[in-house]
Amino acid sequence: MRIDVLTLFPEMFEGVFQASILGKARDKGIVKLNAVNFRLYANNKHNTVDDYPYGGGGGMVLKPEPIFAAVEDLAASVREEQAPFSPEGLHNDGLPEESQVHAQGGGEGKPPRVILMCPQGETFTQKKAEELAKEERLIFVCGHYEGYDERIRQYLVTDELSIGDYVLTGGELPAMVVIDSVVRLLPGVLGNENSAVTDSFSTGLLEYPHYTRPASFRGWDVPDVLISGHHENIDKWRRRQSLERTWRRRPELLEGVELSRQDKQWLDQLKLEMERPKEASNDQGCGQETGGTKA
Amino acid sequence: MRIDVLTLFPEMFEGVFQASILGKARDKGIVKLNAVNFRLYANNKHNTVDDYPYGGGGGMVLKPEPIFAAVEDLAASVREEQAPFSPEGLHNDGLPEESQVHAQGGGEGKPPRVILMCPQGETFTQKKAEELAKEERLIFVCGHYEGYDERIRQYLVTDELSIGDYVLTGGELPAMVVIDSVVRLLPGVLGNENSAVTDSFSTGLLEYPHYTRPASFRGWDVPDVLISGHHENIDKWRRRQSLERTWRRRPELLEGVELSRQDKQWLDQLKLEMERPKEASNDQGCGQETGGTKA
Repeated sequence: MRIDVLTLFPEMFEGVFQASILGKARDKGIVKLNAVNFRLYANNKHNTVDDYPYGGGGGMVLKPEPIFAAVEDLAASVREEQAPFSPEGLHNDGLPEESQVHAQGGGEGKPPRVILMCPQGETFTQKKAEELAKEERLIFVCGHYEGYDERIRQYLVTDELSIGDYVLTGGELPAMVVIDSVVRLLPGVLGNENSAVTDSFSTGLLEYPHYTRPASFRGWDVPDVLISGHHENIDKWRRRQSLERTWRRRPELLEGVELSRQDKQWLDQLKLEMERPKEASNDQGCGQETGGTKA
Repeated sequence: MRIDVLTLFPEMFEGVFQASILGKARDKGIVKLNAVNFRLYANNKHNTVDDYPYGGGGGMVLKPEPIFAAVEDLAASVREEQAPFSPEGLHNDGLPEESQVHAQGGGEGKPPRVILMCPQGETFTQKKAEELAKEERLIFVCGHYEGYDERIRQYLVTDELSIGDYVLTGGELPAMVVIDSVVRLLPGVLGNENSAVTDSFSTGLLEYPHYTRPASFRGWDVPDVLISGHHENIDKWRRRQSLERTWRRRPELLEGVELSRQDKQWLDQLKLEMERPKEASNDQGCGQETGGTKA
């Protein structure tokens, strides 16, 4: 997979693209990651990429030309030759009038997905990550403070994504979040030690509590069951803890989960406990709405 | 405000903490940002910070000792002296047995909020960002692949946050997201040119489409109303576009918005248009569920 990010702050990506899973996936040749400053594509003497909004109002708006030019150039740079991409090899000449990106000529490979990070976008989910992980090429467009000219949205991008309902300074951190979640799904990226973590999500429930050594830390002990060596009881305890935590924190997630008869009994018990006075609830090691409430 | 981040990958934060709004807020002295490798607090000869889980199963679990020690040391380093913090001045000696973090002695300043980034956490929202922006001290705890020993959750942290329902490699990117959204709310961080962008969120609706020069780009024109100079019509058009976009993409957001009689009329019209055959809908410059569908 190849991923290009259009941004005015490519230096924000350096540390993130080199560290941890992304760095490893890159070293293994599984993904090419490339942050491009789209100011390089500003076709005017002051290298301007934004301008005042039509109709007045505060804020600036990103102009369509540099972003169209950058996306089309990056898309063409792969189609024309299968040689490795070099960010220095920009070629702005000879671009056709119409967008190349959506023009699907025969046998030229799949056109890239062009993803605009913006608060108005579709909320990003794990399902979307799985969908994007099947692509060969992703191009992210990140604005910063400014709005986007609507024609970018209408005629250039294929997806608009938001990572959540909070206000951020730009699309850079959201793009990193999407890239991390997509790249870790690519075959060969995660070793065995990590895929186990992913598995625990596939139940659709929140994870059960984990404990490691020491067995007693400042007087706070690991639950006896986990030290018992009785695997059936351990599995039961973990399932029940997962259910309880999900029910307390994110009850809406339970709707998507197939529940066994035992699961349903546990949930009924929990509901009963909630109706009784406070002290009845709370096994050791679970049930805190936020951590630290027992301190 | 001072923000410390506990992580095994402090280098991921370098580019992000220096660029853009975070870099400016730091230069102005409004916020201190500090990424600390908690491996420095591992009190064993191999500098181990994780261990196998009690009860078996895949994956590793972060041990409680290094994270408790790091949080308590960072909390104490500010309480003991009001002098500026230096990351070199770590002092592990003389830590009391009980957590210092929640021990509120008289007049020693507010204890820090200790925030665990994890998928089981409360979903982060703009309201939470506003709440955290009122604090003097935030300490973020970021795991990476591993689970957290449950005692960290129960007895050390004050908040558990998730930025959305997708699987990421670690808590680092989520911590950056929360930090960006909090710091931009601190007084003096945003200039006037940016606060306008924030205002457009405060209506509770998604933003209306923006346009800038050129008025015609590849045959795609800016809507006439925006060039008319008729401010009342422009305001009406924008309000209607905001309403329509919100209704099409995120109808649940409309529940939290105070709607005028005119707003309600527009929404009724939209609903009627949806029931009629396709072509009836879609003003220019709005109504695409995803961009690019008209290309």
